[in-house]
Amino acid sequence: MSDTYRRIALARRPEGAPRAEDFALKTDPLPALEDGHILVRTEWLSLDPYMRGRMDDAKSYAEPVALGGTITGQGVGTVLASKAEGFAEGDTVTGMTGWADHAVLPGTECRKLDPGTPPSAMLGVLGMPGFTGWRGLHEYGRPKAGETLVVGAATGPVGSMVGQLARLAGLRTIAIAGGAEKCRIATETFGFDAAIDHRAHDDARALRAAIAEAAPDGVDIYWENVGGKLLEAVLPLMNTHGRIPLCGAVAWYGGVDSDTDRLPMAWRSILVKRLSVNGFIIFDHWDHYPAFLRDVAPKVAAGEITYLEDVAEGLENAPEAFMAMLKGGNVGKQVVRI
Amino acid sequence: MSDTYRRIALARRPEGAPRAEDFALKTDPLPALEDGHILVRTEWLSLDPYMRGRMDDAKSYAEPVALGGTITGQGVGTVLASKAEGFAEGDTVTGMTGWADHAVLPGTECRKLDPGTPPSAMLGVLGMPGFTGWRGLHEYGRPKAGETLVVGAATGPVGSMVGQLARLAGLRTIAIAGGAEKCRIATETFGFDAAIDHRAHDDARALRAAIAEAAPDGVDIYWENVGGKLLEAVLPLMNTHGRIPLCGAVAWYGGVDSDTDRLPMAWRSILVKRLSVNGFIIFDHWDHYPAFLRDVAPKVAAGEITYLEDVAEGLENAPEAFMAMLKGGNVGKQVVRI
Repeated sequence: MSDTYRRIALARRPEGAPRAEDFALKTDPLPALEDGHILVRTEWLSLDPYMRGRMDDAKSYAEPVALGGTITGQGVGTVLASKAEGFAEGDTVTGMTGWADHAVLPGTECRKLDPGTPPSAMLGVLGMPGFTGWRGLHEYGRPKAGETLVVGAATGPVGSMVGQLARLAGLRTIAIAGGAEKCRIATETFGFDAAIDHRAHDDARALRAAIAEAAPDGVDIYWENVGGKLLEAVLPLMNTHGRIPLCGAVAWYGGVDSDTDRLPMAWRSILVKRLSVNGFIIFDHWDHYPAFLRDVAPKVAAGEITYLEDVAEGLENAPEAFMAMLKGGNVGKQVVRI
Repeated sequence: MSDTYRRIALARRPEGAPRAEDFALKTDPLPALEDGHILVRTEWLSLDPYMRGRMDDAKSYAEPVALGGTITGQGVGTVLASKAEGFAEGDTVTGMTGWADHAVLPGTECRKLDPGTPPSAMLGVLGMPGFTGWRGLHEYGRPKAGETLVVGAATGPVGSMVGQLARLAGLRTIAIAGGAEKCRIATETFGFDAAIDHRAHDDARALRAAIAEAAPDGVDIYWENVGGKLLEAVLPLMNTHGRIPLCGAVAWYGGVDSDTDRLPMAWRSILVKRLSVNGFIIFDHWDHYPAFLRDVAPKVAAGEITYLEDVAEGLENAPEAFMAMLKGGNVGKQVVRI
């Protein structure tokens, strides 16, 4: 066993798309194996788009990688030495090894692979990406048989999980992918009902027309991990009460100018802050009106909830009052006495 | 009882802000009172921002007002004649009278006022606007004591309901309103903890600084009924797992150029389609990972769910594989064999 290890360090923070000079291969002494830890020889390393975000020095949902630090990543490997309960030399485990051929990790943050699991599958279909698709689809997509699903980056490990789960649940599934070959894979390998090559469509309008043709009943779930042109194409095709699980924005990872384009700024906030944005129209909710009156009418009567009214006089003055209201000319609830 | 009635008709579809010429006062014969209907003399008419949307010939959540048609609206009035079960002459009722001094309405779509209810309150604090605030706050805002709430158009009938309910629930409440007088009303009449005059701040950045000062612990719920500058100001201040009930976009009601500004287009879609947009990060959900493996690992083993991998060879090639992946160069899950 060598007493050094090799790792890929962040040499420079990328501007836009990463370049070779942003990375550096380093050889360093292996850290000591402390109690509760295991030494793992990494055999498989996962590469995932989220890592691009960690390379920026921006506040996000996780700490950025330090300059000179090892780039974050999940690996699968073999335990070479263990001082952690439940792990023994020779075990196959997964954990956050980073981009490194060895890692010393706390046993509590590692997981032994179930027998028969292909090691690399633990990084994809049975790992974080597959789990992302499964959890997000059930928790936020809420698929129902007969509905239509559109998935960006559909041949990727997240998108292909989402598409297959939705197909198994009886949805019509539409893949968006880059290039004819990925489209072929989407339908032939992953069983999507249709696949659309976003590169074959110059702008959101053209892409929208292609999606509309493949989704004659509109779109109920848009699995959003792309942003950009695709988001703009799909939004107007959404059906009422549609759901948009939002777990990535690859098109905007290279940085955007939020002064000139406010959509990415907003979308990034929803993602990074895990916001829940719910459009609603009260006319869908009238069945709850009696409950409202039971709750609030006594509070109004008791003065716990107060209200203001602006009263305009006469039907003929309704337009003027309405126009003033839209400009903020009123204070309370605007009514007209007729 | 006259056999004609007066009504305000839509004479022309407004472009941007409505103008006087868009409206016309008409006198028409009263329709016949058919079975199941009541004749109401309107005494109070509600004016609400949503009516602006009905004046456009755009597909939205409701049919537009026809040219020459009476403008939509809720009213309160007295029953002059009834052919509907449960209603008698002299009853005080509310229903969709439109902007008209009399209306013939189906009894099933009208409601008698509870004794003691001030008629005009039925159009505001106890009507659609108050109900909107109550329902949206509970269903989508999910307030918790100790959290911070920001409300746009805070002295309006929706915003003032939201603010008061949130204060009663133990939240810190911050009003955004236009002008010093409305700010005074927000804190003195409605009990907001702080009020910020959006007119005193030229752009989103300045407004954001003022809100940040009033919300030292960040914003947990943003009641979004404005759009525009306020939305941009608040989004970066949202706390993780914040909630944004979205029930209006007054700042954008006058029409926007969606080719040059994509944020309003997106936001309008969320609103009009009642979409649920949920940002999520899988790292928040690891407690569901065992359930995922129980569900999906057998499906993978059985070939019901398939997967693709792209394998790069050697740690030193990880950067190149990563850069290619961000450009879409891979097809399946990208892993590195070390």
